[in-house]
Amino acid sequence: MNKRDPLKNIRVVLAHPSHPGNIGAAARAMKTMGLDALHLVRPRRFPDPEADARAAGAEDLLRNARMHPDIPDALRGCAFSVATSSRHRELRHDLMDARAAARELVAQAAHHPAAIVFGNETTGLTSEEAGLCRVWARIPSDPRYPSLNLAAAVQIFAYELRLATAQPAPPAEPEFVPANFEQLDLLYRHFEKTMTHSGFFDPANPKRLLPRLRRLLARARLETGEVDILRGFLNAVDKMHR
Amino acid sequence: MNKRDPLKNIRVVLAHPSHPGNIGAAARAMKTMGLDALHLVRPRRFPDPEADARAAGAEDLLRNARMHPDIPDALRGCAFSVATSSRHRELRHDLMDARAAARELVAQAAHHPAAIVFGNETTGLTSEEAGLCRVWARIPSDPRYPSLNLAAAVQIFAYELRLATAQPAPPAEPEFVPANFEQLDLLYRHFEKTMTHSGFFDPANPKRLLPRLRRLLARARLETGEVDILRGFLNAVDKMHR
Repeated sequence: MNKRDPLKNIRVVLAHPSHPGNIGAAARAMKTMGLDALHLVRPRRFPDPEADARAAGAEDLLRNARMHPDIPDALRGCAFSVATSSRHRELRHDLMDARAAARELVAQAAHHPAAIVFGNETTGLTSEEAGLCRVWARIPSDPRYPSLNLAAAVQIFAYELRLATAQPAPPAEPEFVPANFEQLDLLYRHFEKTMTHSGFFDPANPKRLLPRLRRLLARARLETGEVDILRGFLNAVDKMHR
Repeated sequence: MNKRDPLKNIRVVLAHPSHPGNIGAAARAMKTMGLDALHLVRPRRFPDPEADARAAGAEDLLRNARMHPDIPDALRGCAFSVATSSRHRELRHDLMDARAAARELVAQAAHHPAAIVFGNETTGLTSEEAGLCRVWARIPSDPRYPSLNLAAAVQIFAYELRLATAQPAPPAEPEFVPANFEQLDLLYRHFEKTMTHSGFFDPANPKRLLPRLRRLLARARLETGEVDILRGFLNAVDKMHR
C-alpha cells in the first residue's frame, strides 16, 4: 500500500490477451499516467519481443508483471475491482462510465488495494469473469463501431485515473473495513457448500444460481464483520445437518 | 459542414507520421468515437498493409484520407485549430488541457470547420507548426514518462471530443464571423510584404519577427471584418511607398 499515491495501489489486470504487442502498448499507456502494477492472466505469448518493442520505454512494467492462472488469483487482496467491457447484456451489476469508475477506483485505492480488469481483445470478459468484480465500467463510444483496441482502452482508463487523482481524496470511512476478494470468495464457497448440503442447490440442475450468487456477493459491498456474520450463520446451518 | 454532428466537422491532421501502423491505429481510435475526417501531411509510408491491419474495421477512414504537402494546406477552410504536444517551451500561446480543448473544439465545430493537429511520433510539432494553430493543447501525464504513443494520444482526444458533444452546444455568436485559415494566411503574408517594403522588417536579419507575427495572428481570434480592416490599412501603407 502506497499512502501517498493511490495510482500505485491499482492493478491493471489483462485477462487472456492474445497479442503481445497489446501488452507492451498497455504497459506504455499505464506508465504515461503513473500506473505501474501490471498483472497478466494466461497471456497467449509473453514475454515476447513485440511486447518489448511496443512498450517503448515501459519495459520495466513488463519485467515486473505478475502472472496469474485466473482472474480470482489476480484479484487476491483487492477490496475494490472494476470490470471493463463494451457490451453488457445483463445489467444487474452497477454499470458506470469510465470517468465515474475511475473516480471511484482512485477513491478506494487511497485506502485499499484495487484492480481494473480488461478482457481478451476479441471476446472481452465473460459475464462470469466480469461478475467477479464490484462494478462494471464502459468507455462511451460510437455505437456503430465501439471496437476500441485493448491498449487504447487501457490508455483512456489510465488517463481518467490520473485526472481523478487531481480531485481531493475522500476520507476513509472509519467504520467501514471492506472485505477483500479472498474473504468474499470463501464466503461464496461456503454458501455453495451449505446450499448444496441443505438441498437448496442441486448441482445436477444448477441453472444460474451460482453465477448470480457470485455476482450478488461481488456487488454487495460487504465489510469484514458482515462476512463473519454470514459465515457464522452458515456454520450454524451446517451443524443442523450433522 | 454537418449541422447535426460537430464531430464530422473536425479534421484530425497527422503531420509527418513515421509509422503506418500508427496511422491505422489512429483511424480506428477516431472511428470508435465517431470522427471520420483523417488528413495526412507527408506520411513516410502510406498506404501500407500495416496501416490497414491496425485500422481493424476503420479502413474506410484510410481510403478517404486526404493528403497534404504541409500543415497550412491541411488547415484550409478551418476557422479553429488545436495543436497537440507534450512539450511547450514557449508558452506565449493559449495552452489548454485536453478536456478543455475538446470542449472548445466541439463548440467551434458546431458552426465552422475545425482541426486538431498531431506531430511526428518522435519530434512532435515544431514551434512554428504549432504556431499555425489557434490554441495549444496537452494531455496531462506523468512528467517522468510523458511519452504517449501517437494513436493513444488521438484516442484520448477523440474520447474527450465525443464526451464534449454530450454538453449542450453554445449558440453561435451572431455577430462573430471568424476568419478562416487562408484569410489569416493572406493577412500574414501581407504584413510580411508591407513590413519588408516599409523597412521595418529586414529579411537579412529576421530574428523571430515572422514566427511571432504568425503566432500572434493565429491566437488573436480575428473575424473576417477585422482582417479586412487590417488589410485595408496595409494597402494604404503599401501605396505610401509608390
